[in-house]
This record gives sequence, C-alpha cells and structure tokens, in this order.
Amino acid sequence: MSAPKKVVLAYSGGLDTSIILKWLETEYGCEVVTFTADLGQGEELEPARKKAEMMGVKEIHIEDLREEFVSDFVFPMFRANAVYEGLYLLGTSIARPLISKRLVEIAEATGADAVAHGATGKGNDQVRFELACYALNPDIKVIAPWREWDLTSRTRLLEFAEAHQIPVAKDKRGEAPFSVDANLLHTSSEGKVLEDPAEMAPDYVYQRTDDPVGGPDQPEYIEITFEKGDAVAINGTAKSPATILTELNEYGRKHGIGRLDFVENRFVGMKSRGIYETPGGTILLEAHRGIEQITLDSGAGHLKDSIMPRYAELIYNGFWFSPEREMLQALIDKSQEHVSGTVRVMLFKGMARTVGRWSDHSLYSEAHVTFEDDAGAYDQKDAAGFIQLNALRLKLLAARDRRLKG
Amino acid sequence: MSAPKKVVLAYSGGLDTSIILKWLETEYGCEVVTFTADLGQGEELEPARKKAEMMGVKEIHIEDLREEFVSDFVFPMFRANAVYEGLYLLGTSIARPLISKRLVEIAEATGADAVAHGATGKGNDQVRFELACYALNPDIKVIAPWREWDLTSRTRLLEFAEAHQIPVAKDKRGEAPFSVDANLLHTSSEGKVLEDPAEMAPDYVYQRTDDPVGGPDQPEYIEITFEKGDAVAINGTAKSPATILTELNEYGRKHGIGRLDFVENRFVGMKSRGIYETPGGTILLEAHRGIEQITLDSGAGHLKDSIMPRYAELIYNGFWFSPEREMLQALIDKSQEHVSGTVRVMLFKGMARTVGRWSDHSLYSEAHVTFEDDAGAYDQKDAAGFIQLNALRLKLLAARDRRLKG
Amino acid sequence: MSAPKKVVLAYSGGLDTSIILKWLETEYGCEVVTFTADLGQGEELEPARKKAEMMGVKEIHIEDLREEFVSDFVFPMFRANAVYEGLYLLGTSIARPLISKRLVEIAEATGADAVAHGATGKGNDQVRFELACYALNPDIKVIAPWREWDLTSRTRLLEFAEAHQIPVAKDKRGEAPFSVDANLLHTSSEGKVLEDPAEMAPDYVYQRTDDPVGGPDQPEYIEITFEKGDAVAINGTAKSPATILTELNEYGRKHGIGRLDFVENRFVGMKSRGIYETPGGTILLEAHRGIEQITLDSGAGHLKDSIMPRYAELIYNGFWFSPEREMLQALIDKSQEHVSGTVRVMLFKGMARTVGRWSDHSLYSEAHVTFEDDAGAYDQKDAAGFIQLNALRLKLLAARDRRLKG
Amino acid sequence: MSAPKKVVLAYSGGLDTSIILKWLETEYGCEVVTFTADLGQGEELEPARKKAEMMGVKEIHIEDLREEFVSDFVFPMFRANAVYEGLYLLGTSIARPLISKRLVEIAEATGADAVAHGATGKGNDQVRFELACYALNPDIKVIAPWREWDLTSRTRLLEFAEAHQIPVAKDKRGEAPFSVDANLLHTSSEGKVLEDPAEMAPDYVYQRTDDPVGGPDQPEYIEITFEKGDAVAINGTAKSPATILTELNEYGRKHGIGRLDFVENRFVGMKSRGIYETPGGTILLEAHRGIEQITLDSGAGHLKDSIMPRYAELIYNGFWFSPEREMLQALIDKSQEHVSGTVRVMLFKGMARTVGRWSDHSLYSEAHVTFEDDAGAYDQKDAAGFIQLNALRLKLLAARDRRLKG
Repeated sequence: MSAPKKVVLAYSGGLDTSIILKWLETEYGCEVVTFTADLGQGEELEPARKKAEMMGVKEIHIEDLREEFVSDFVFPMFRANAVYEGLYLLGTSIARPLISKRLVEIAEATGADAVAHGATGKGNDQVRFELACYALNPDIKVIAPWREWDLTSRTRLLEFAEAHQIPVAKDKRGEAPFSVDANLLHTSSEGKVLEDPAEMAPDYVYQRTDDPVGGPDQPEYIEITFEKGDAVAINGTAKSPATILTELNEYGRKHGIGRLDFVENRFVGMKSRGIYETPGGTILLEAHRGIEQITLDSGAGHLKDSIMPRYAELIYNGFWFSPEREMLQALIDKSQEHVSGTVRVMLFKGMARTVGRWSDHSLYSEAHVTFEDDAGAYDQKDAAGFIQLNALRLKLLAARDRRLKG
Repeated sequence: MSAPKKVVLAYSGGLDTSIILKWLETEYGCEVVTFTADLGQGEELEPARKKAEMMGVKEIHIEDLREEFVSDFVFPMFRANAVYEGLYLLGTSIARPLISKRLVEIAEATGADAVAHGATGKGNDQVRFELACYALNPDIKVIAPWREWDLTSRTRLLEFAEAHQIPVAKDKRGEAPFSVDANLLHTSSEGKVLEDPAEMAPDYVYQRTDDPVGGPDQPEYIEITFEKGDAVAINGTAKSPATILTELNEYGRKHGIGRLDFVENRFVGMKSRGIYETPGGTILLEAHRGIEQITLDSGAGHLKDSIMPRYAELIYNGFWFSPEREMLQALIDKSQEHVSGTVRVMLFKGMARTVGRWSDHSLYSEAHVTFEDDAGAYDQKDAAGFIQLNALRLKLLAARDRRLKG
Repeated sequence: MSAPKKVVLAYSGGLDTSIILKWLETEYGCEVVTFTADLGQGEELEPARKKAEMMGVKEIHIEDLREEFVSDFVFPMFRANAVYEGLYLLGTSIARPLISKRLVEIAEATGADAVAHGATGKGNDQVRFELACYALNPDIKVIAPWREWDLTSRTRLLEFAEAHQIPVAKDKRGEAPFSVDANLLHTSSEGKVLEDPAEMAPDYVYQRTDDPVGGPDQPEYIEITFEKGDAVAINGTAKSPATILTELNEYGRKHGIGRLDFVENRFVGMKSRGIYETPGGTILLEAHRGIEQITLDSGAGHLKDSIMPRYAELIYNGFWFSPEREMLQALIDKSQEHVSGTVRVMLFKGMARTVGRWSDHSLYSEAHVTFEDDAGAYDQKDAAGFIQLNALRLKLLAARDRRLKG
Repeated sequence: MSAPKKVVLAYSGGLDTSIILKWLETEYGCEVVTFTADLGQGEELEPARKKAEMMGVKEIHIEDLREEFVSDFVFPMFRANAVYEGLYLLGTSIARPLISKRLVEIAEATGADAVAHGATGKGNDQVRFELACYALNPDIKVIAPWREWDLTSRTRLLEFAEAHQIPVAKDKRGEAPFSVDANLLHTSSEGKVLEDPAEMAPDYVYQRTDDPVGGPDQPEYIEITFEKGDAVAINGTAKSPATILTELNEYGRKHGIGRLDFVENRFVGMKSRGIYETPGGTILLEAHRGIEQITLDSGAGHLKDSIMPRYAELIYNGFWFSPEREMLQALIDKSQEHVSGTVRVMLFKGMARTVGRWSDHSLYSEAHVTFEDDAGAYDQKDAAGFIQLNALRLKLLAARDRRLKG
C-alpha cells in the first residue's frame, strides 16, 4: 500500500483518536479530515469540533446521523428479530456500516484517498469498518493505527500525546477499568475488570440502565404500533424512528430492561466477555415478535426464523454491505408487508413481556380456534386424513424395521 | 379401519377420559386398558386407579415416568436450546412422545390392537400422539374419540356421563374458563377467556408461578452444573434429572419466572393463543446457554443455532420419532461432549440471567482477549491479512459496479 | 361443502376429463365451463373445443399460455437452479400453479363457484392444484372426482362413458401401459410398466428425447445468452422465453439430453418411480450454472445453494402461491441482477456441459488468479493472517483437548 | 514464530518440493524429514525415496494411504452426496486433511517442531493444510515456503536449483502449460492455458479420462452394492474401498465420465477456473443417489440435502477437522444406517445414469403407489383432509388480502 495523502478519520474528540490524528500526520505526512457523528452515543459533538480545530484540522465534518441510523440500519435489522448467538442484539455491529459509509462518502467528496479508524487488531470492529469501506470503494485505503504503530502501552501513548501537545484530561491519565462503546441502540462494556467470565460484573459497569432491583414496584404498560415491521408510534402517538428508539430507551432505563452478561465468539477467532445494555431494543424486539405472532403466517415465520442466525452472523462479522445480506434483507422485507398493528408490552423489573396484540392484518381466527361451536369453519375429520398422510412414511419406516428384525 | 378389540387408553381419571373410557366400551364393545402416568403434572395417581377400578377396568397401568421424561426427552431437547417460534419451550410437545411410547408398549404387552387419546381434532396433540404411535407400531389403531363421536357440546357430554353412571364432580358441571395441560416441564392454559389475543390474561390463569410483582425483593443466585450438556447439580449438590427440574421449578415459581403469553402457529394450520409457565425450564435454558458460551466453539454453536428452528418445529409438529429428529439429535449430542461446567444464574422478579460461568472445558482464553499485553498469544498483524482476504470478493464486486457504471 | 352450481373444469379433451365433465353434470346437476390450455404439451387444442362443444358445453376457454408459463413460472424457478431430491427438474410441479391460477380467474369471470381437476388421490398434483386454488381464492370449491366417485376401475369408467354417450377411441379401450404428463418443460411417465424400480424402463417409454446411443456422433456447441438470470438469446439471436425453451428442447431431443430414471418422495408420503425427460431444461440448468460461475459472488451463490432444496420442495409440494416461496423468490431474484452473459455448452450423447463463459458482469479476475506475476493485485502474505485467524478457534479446541487429556 | 529446528516436508520427489527441501535447510538450518504418500496419484514412490536419499535426507517416510484415504475420507464424504457449488466433487479438498494428519503424526513421532507444504499463497490448499495441522496440534509450526521466499519466478527457481545441485529434468526447464493435482479420486488441472474461462480447454488437458467422443458406442451396465452408505461390491464381487474406487475409475476412464470445466470461488476470495476429472467418483455419486432413492425416507433425505452445501463448503475451505464438520458427519452417518442395496448404472459417452435399484431395506411400496387396486393400503379420502389442513393457512392469508382490499 502506498502512503496515504489525505485521510478521513473517524474522530470522537477523545484522547485516543486525537493521538491517531496526530500520528497520521506525523507518520504519513498526510492531511487529516475529521468525521464525528452523532449516533446517539450521548456525547456532545461541539467539543470534538473545538478539539479538531485546536489541532489544526481544516476539514471538520460533524453530522447527526441518528434518524438514518435507526431507519436504515436498526429497523431493517429488527425486522429479522436478529440476535447473535441466541442473545446479543448487535448494537455495536449495526453502527459500523453507517460510519464506514459516511467515511467513504466524505473521502470521495473531499478527495481523500484513505480513511482511518480507531479499532484495535483484536476485535470485530476493525473487520466491520474495513469490509464496509472496501465494499463501498474498492480502491480506498483503510488505515488501522492500532495494528501499525508501536504505541503499545498506556505509557507510550501518553508520552506521544505529551510530545505532540495533545492535552490529556486528568481522568484519562489512568487506565479505564473497562472499555465502552455506545450509540442509540446500546452500550457495550468489555475488558479489564470484565475479563474473568466467572466473576459477576460490578454494578458500576451498568451505565445505561437503572438497577432493576431499585426499579418501579409496579409494572408499566405501553403500546407500540408497527407498520410493515417498523415501529411507528408509542401509546398511539406517531414519532420518527430515532424518537421512538429514544423513548423506548427511556422506558427501558427506568425498568432496568436489556442487561446482558455475555461471552461471545468474535469473528477473529477468540471468545470475549461483554456487558451489553440495550434497553429500548429489548422492548422493541419483544414487541416485534408480538406483532408478528398474529400477522405473520407460519410458513413465512419459520423461514425467517431459519435464516435469522445467518443474517445475524453476517451483521456481526461485518458483512452488512454484501450481496448475501442484501438477499436476506429482500427476503425479510418481503415478509413484513403485513406486519402492522399494535402490541401491549408489560415493563417490570428488567423484563419486557408482550401481554396483548391486535391488528387489522391479523391472521388469528377465533372462528377456527374456538373451543366453542365453530359454525363449520373447521372440520375435525380433516385432521384424520392430515395425520394419516403425515404418518405414512413413518409407518413405512416402522414396517421396514419390523421386516428386517424378522 | 376395522373395529378395535382391546384398547389402551391414556387415562387421567378426570371426567373427559372417563367418558371416553365408557364410550369406547359402548361404541366398539371392546375391552379398555387404562394407562395413567406421572409426568410431574402435580396430581395424585391413586384416584385415577380407584376411578378406573370403579368403572370396571381390569388392566390398570399406573407409572411414574418423571425420571424417564426428563432424562430421555426434556434434557436431550434442552441440549439444542430448542424454542418454537422464538419463545415457546415446547413443554406440551415433548411429553406426548413418551406417553405414546408407553401406550404402544402396553398395547403390545397386553395384546391390545388399539390405543386411544383424549385430544381434540383442532389441536397439535392428536398429531403428536398419533405420529408417535404409528412410528413405533405401523399396525396399531389409534382412536381419537373427539374426532369421532357426537358428544359435541358440554350438555351432551354430561348427559352421556349421567346415562352411564359416571360421577361428575360439582365443579365440573359448568365449563372450565380455560383448558390446562401440565407436566414437570410446564403448565399451559388456553381457550375460552384467553381466546382474544388482544386481552391480557387474567391473573388467575397463572397457576404454576407466583406473580413476579409480589416476588422476593432481592435477587437470588444459584449455581447449576452441567455435564455433556445436561444439568447434574444445583449449588454443588448432584441430583437426578427429575429432581433437578423439580427444584428449578420451585426456584422459578418463587421468582415468577417463565411466564409466556403467546400466539403460535399450530401444525394443523391455525393460530392459537396460550399462556405458558415454564419456571424451571426457563432457568435451565438460560443456564445451558451460559455454559455453552464458554465451552462451545463458534463453528459448533453457529451450526447448532442454524438447525435449532427446524429441530424445534419437528418436536412441535409431533415428529420426535422420525429419522430427521434423530439425525439432528446425533448432531446436537455430538456438540455437547465438552459442554460441562457451572453457571451462576441470578433469579429476580420474573427474570433468570447468567452472571458468571466457569469450566475445565472452557475455550475462553484470557491470554488472547486481554487488553493488556498478551505475551504474543495473538499477532494483531494477522488481522490485516484476514480482513484483506475476506474483503477480496467485496472489492471485486465493487470494482464491477464501478466498471459497469463507469 | 355445499353442492357446486357452476364448475370450471381443467379439460384436456381426452377420455378421462370427458367422463369427469359428464360426471360433474350428473352428480351435481351443475353447469360445467371447460378450460383447455396450451402449455406446450404438444397436442392440438381444437379437438378439445370440438369435443366440448359436442358434449354441450356452453362456455369453452382455450388459451395459449406458453409464454406466460415460461416467463412467469419456468424462468423464475430456473434462477434458483431448483432440483428436487438432487435430480428432478420439477417439470410437472411448475405447471400446476399456472393452470390453477387460470381456473380461479375463469371461475371469477364466469361466476362459477367451483373448479375441478382430473388428478387422482394418490399423487402430488391434487395437492398442487388445490393449494394453489385456495391460496388465490379462499372461498372457491375444488372438486377432485377421482377422490369422490365410485368409478374405481377401467371397466366402470368405460361403462359410464358408454352410458353417457361419450365416444371412446379404440386405443383407449385397453389401459395405457403407463401414464404421461407433458408440457413445454418436460414429459413425465409413471405407473404400470414402470412400477418396479429395479427394472429398466423400456425404450418406448421415452417419447421426448431420441436415444443418445443413436444420436449425432460429434458434439454440437451452442451459445446461450442470459440477462438477469433468464435466457434471452441462442447463438446470438434474441428470442422470446417460450421460443428459447422450444429450441433448447429440439437441441436436447436430438442429442438425447435430459433423461432421468427416478424414485422420488411424494408429498403424500409414498415413494414413486418416474421417467422424466427434460431436454431443454437440462441444457438451461447447465448453462445457468455456467453463467453464475463468473457473475455470482461466492456469498450470494452459497446462500442460494443453501436455500435451494427448500425452494424446490415448496414447488414440488404445491406451495408456489405461498408467502415463503415469494420470500425465497425475492432473495433469488435479488441475486440475479448481474447474472448476465453468455455460456457455450457442448451437447453430445445425452450430455450438456459448459465449456466456456464470458460476461461484462464477470467477477473473474485473471489479474488475481494468475500463476504469472500479478502486479500486486494480491499479496500472498495476507494469506498467512487469514489462515492464522481462521485457525485460532481450532487451536484453542486442540489446546483444550490436550489440556484435558494431559 | 521462532525458527523451526526439524521439519516434516510433504515431499513428492519433484522439482518444486526438492527446491523446498533444500531451501528449508539453507533458510532455517533445520533438519528435514520427508513424507511421501501414495494417495493414488498414479506415480511411483521409489523415485521419491531415491531423490530424498540423494539429497541427504535421513528420515524418509513413504506410505501407501490409499485404503485409509478412501475408507476414512472419500467414503464418508460421499455419504453426504457432497458437491461444491453445484458441481465439484471435492477431489483435491478431501486429500489434504489426510496428508496433514500424517505430517503432524510423523512430526510428533520424529520430534519435529514444524511441517512444510508446497502450496502457494493464492490457493485453497495452503488453508486446508494449515487448518488441519493446527486443529491436530495447536503448537505445530507450519511453513509455507511459497509465501515466504523470494523465488518468485521460474528463472529464480531454476537458478536456486542449479546453485544447490538439484537436478532438473529437461522437460521441467520450461514451464508446464498448466498445473496438476491428482489422487485416487480425481485429477485437477488449472492455470496458464486454462486461465481464460471463455476459452475451451484444449484436449491435452484431460489426462484421466478418454474422450467420450471416441468411447464405446454401446452402453455398459454395472451394478454397485452399498452397505450403510458405502460401496462394498461391484457386479456382485466384494472389494476393498480403494479397489472399488480404482475399478470405478477404470470404468469411468473408458467411457469418458466425470469431466468438469468449472469456475469456482476459492476460500481466499477469488474465482479460479479448473478442469476436473473424477471418473469413478462421478459414477459413485450417481449410484449413491440411486440407492438412497429407495432406502432413505423423505424427512431424512431432505434434511441431508439442506445441510449438504454447508458440509461441502466446510471440506472445500479446509475445515475437515472441525467440530461442525464432525457434527454434520454424525448427522449424515446416522442417516445411512439403512442405505444398503444395489444400483444398476448405465455408462455411456461421458454419462453415468441410474437405471435400476433394489434393496432389502427399500421403503418403496408398490402396494401404496400402484395405479391398480391397492387393497386398502392407501385411502384416497385421506388426501382431502391432508390438503384442507395444509391449505388452511393459505386460505386465511387469502381471506386477509380480500378483507384488506375490501
């Protein structure tokens, strides 16, 4: 790879990416464009602008991507009820493709030949960033300083910062007890104090949700309305995608919903332990399943269920921008045409549970299922033939066994 | 089908199966053998014996099948983390094959040519009973009185009972507000007051779990130990399979764990709404996932995840005794050889959550994952090549797009 | 089911469906509308009109559906490379939905309340016809005379024909030595002389293809051009879908291509043996695979391959008009956007084999794959990292085994 | 990676691996042990021994692995009907794990700390060798000289040979027009003259099969007998696994069977074009499918079909020694318990086609399928109920559509 001339850096304004900014300039003698996005991580963006200006950056891009994040990434994923390895709602995974997309677009707009990210060489995020960037621009260079430089200890990082006049906040001098990633969908925490999966995570790790033990002592009920698989209203009031997720987060926070202590398999081959908090997403998944229960046919639902693990794995591994994810999305979206209606969810002490659902698109037929007289909707005699033909091959198998055993 | 001469009836001792008993005798002039099993439904069996004796039955079979139920049916199923349509733990489905197996075996032992069950023509249970029976004995006759007789209203049933001196308890004169099935794994309730899926289930429907709202105000922690995928000990004390499930049920009951309000797709083609309570099973599933997190490799785990929906569907639909279920079981059992270790689970207000896990068989490598110096366990430079080759096809795709748009 | 008042009958003009026509009139006192379609079965349609007129039918519908058949049914299916149980190209299965669709549409247009077909109660076709009809009109009645009447022997059928003045051609007095279904995609033969799967099918069974033994002694090469997964030209000349399949059939017939002696699993639970001849379809499948080889990415291709068996099973079982088939079609169609280009196929003595393929949409990169100097397109060092990270979990597994055995 | 001290080299005796042998000694100053295996590639092994001796190798391992290759690798794979990307029989892929296994075993026996192979950095074989080695010994070093050295042109290789007194046969001075791999299952050819996938492969590329055009003008029929999924006899004569494959190869060669011109997706991300010849394997696959047709139940067969692409991909990608391949193998082997019986295959001009099959384990029931009177084996009325319940959800869907369009 030839040396980059101009690099768009995913820049948070924090110490690490400030060091990367300076390192890129000194290592490659290249110009650096910063890109800072609001994906709902709950931090002010203006300090990042100030910091970048202070460091002499000329092209500073700051964007509020929350609506795009939810409508084009989070919601499509939730249509699939995607969970990784049975439990993880993919909160980090789903943010990376959007950041990558904007990095590449800004590179093309500013004439940069490279992009850079602050993910380490051990994790999934490097893969997600880079696969997405390459899929969008096959000629882009992607620089991952953590895989390249020799700033391999906290001490050396701080020395570099000092040597280059990068201000270091006092509380950043020591090492954080764990590492955090956050966006509108979730907060993840991993590393350091969490590295022994036998040990319970300390209380202070949870930042996004209140302790369910201290939560409200009575359940709260909310109603979420869906159209074609996407949430469009809470308690009857229509809202934008990001607003809905923000409000669900607030409900979830209050009731301590969406905490997950998890050991997962990283794409790069090792297991890692993380604490995930996905308050609004957990409610949303429960409600989406609830509305699918009455609006989705069994053939459609079972097919969706069977491909979901693969879909989730693709997102986890960084293949959002890939033909196979898009093919699966086409399948999923096709299934959601009638996934419209309203779900009542009970929120209580860490739990979100569907307790009612209704829809104009419902396939539930009380006429068929009733224990009472069904007025001929269903002829129980049909079941005999249904069973006989389903049994036929099993009988032939059993007959063979008997024949062979003599 | 020629008329049966001798029938083994799955007999609960209740009003409905007593009517069936008498109906079989009068309709077919056949001898009836009764079979009553303890699968942990929580009812005394001796009254069933007395009732059968009183009705003149000569061959009465009463068996405690709890250990066989858990070790040969429930535990193998839990090795797969089987859930139907995302949420249902298959508590009714998994009991039917065992009952069917004993019906067929008793028929063969007593020289009966037929078996009979009390499931209706609208549900899944008829299918499960009959497929299992035919798979075990291709020549057996299976009689489903509810599909055959004309006792199609409560009034006619009671008239029949009266005409045949079948005692009817006072509280059985009116219709039950819902229908119940129970065994050691779960209790299900459906019908009548539950038929509108928009309406919240009334509190009195829940019989197996205490209301989480009134549950203990502090979490309780338990440790479950697994060997080759099966739970073998609680809090360090080894116990039999049925004892483990019984104890977990008690923990679950106390904390209100395992309630599910669900609309599902029946195999016979309609949707139905049920309330399921699976207290111990919900804890067991959570813990099994927890121990798999550190002992199961990603390749094994992802394969298991991908076939699970099909496995669950087979059990739900009644194909326990089928080549394909046995093939999937072989796959699943193969995966469990190292699924041994201990999980700490937090129980609180309806929730069971893994908060720690450890094992001699752990694949978790702190040396690899650590944020600290890993002493060369992992070379971050490898990630660059890993990403490049994973990206290659995406780059070729992107290059094609550019070329064609070019 | 109440008695039908007006029935649209799938009418071939042959003896069996003429008997059905009369039987419907006499059994139900209903009016019968006939529908006869040209799906490329190679029979004149005018005799069917004459016969229907002679039998007093007032509404006679005769339609050439060949183009619709190929463009809306055959081609979409071939995009998936669909084969049932490894070998069968689904020639009969794919014709049934189209016939059903027209039956229902004609019923709606003519005010008929029922449709009728001539499929027996043992086969798949009854299922395919009826599922399709019900999926398109939930209120339609479907009449399957073979399951209802008592004309259960050849003798009784002929008696009925005689009694109702239905002319019987001399060669129809005896029973045919096997049963045939044909359309533009294939000819199937089954029953009677073919019922012992150990015995070779007699030569006279093959009607659609010449014996490869006597075929041309030199290979013939043709070029098939695809656009978005569908064949659009042969040897550079653009043609309509039905014309393309017709020409490929002629090529296939001449070279004896597409013969299959097959024992399959019917949806109704039994195995049956059939002889299938799919001359053009066999060439088309080979060519479609050939063009996908260079235009389809591995991620897309592997996903397609993995869902293909399910897609084929749906079509075989009669679920063309179902949400899950439509979902899979959306996935498949998404994959075909770049499946455009040309394939050269060698035809020789029963064999069709791709021997060359080229496309503007090709993903094949000689620059990458070459044994010669690749000018830096590919860095072989990347492979080391790729392998190391793919191996990491395998090493951790092996280390565990050693530790436990240690 | 620290420098290796003693290396086991997969040694063919040819020029390339002789250069590697010398390069390892000079580059690392290590001792080299050679390992040469007969996997049926059709070359004498003694010259390899002589050459190794001449080059001063002290530990020379030469083994005939043909029986192990077929019984433990080829046959288990054929139980799955494994084909990669629809067409490739995995002839190269399946040989690599066995070679790797012996490399690792010999390393352990001889106290070597490393193994080496002659695969390049662009292909799949490097991955297959290395994943297998690491899976069997997590501490082994694997050396891939082609990824390390600077002998990147033919000229430099020959210079190295000359400088180190490695004799170069005259016909090896020029570059081969394509590259070949062979074993008892197949011969593959790729590179150079084959690099343009639009161009037909020249005749001289085919080395393992006679041109079908010149083959026998009359079909030949053979009978292959299977037990539990493996071929055990030809024309009634029992033979060892390797003998069976050898004989089938001879049949296939004579009739020009098993030629494949293929563009495939390599695991490392690029497409490549190869010519594969798998004469005996092509016959074996056809026959195995033939015997499964009558002995395998549809549930078992469809499950096998659905996981086959994944199984084939695992073998192609080099994951033979992985938990997920072993899990799938357990599933497949379970399915083969009754896959016993005999298949008659017609061989003619490049084609192998099942034309008859019979078995004591057959599930085919003429009694059920017959067009004649079936003596009550099957009640056609059952089909009505079967269809009604399969149609129920489709009717509910159609009713919803009508209601909404209202």
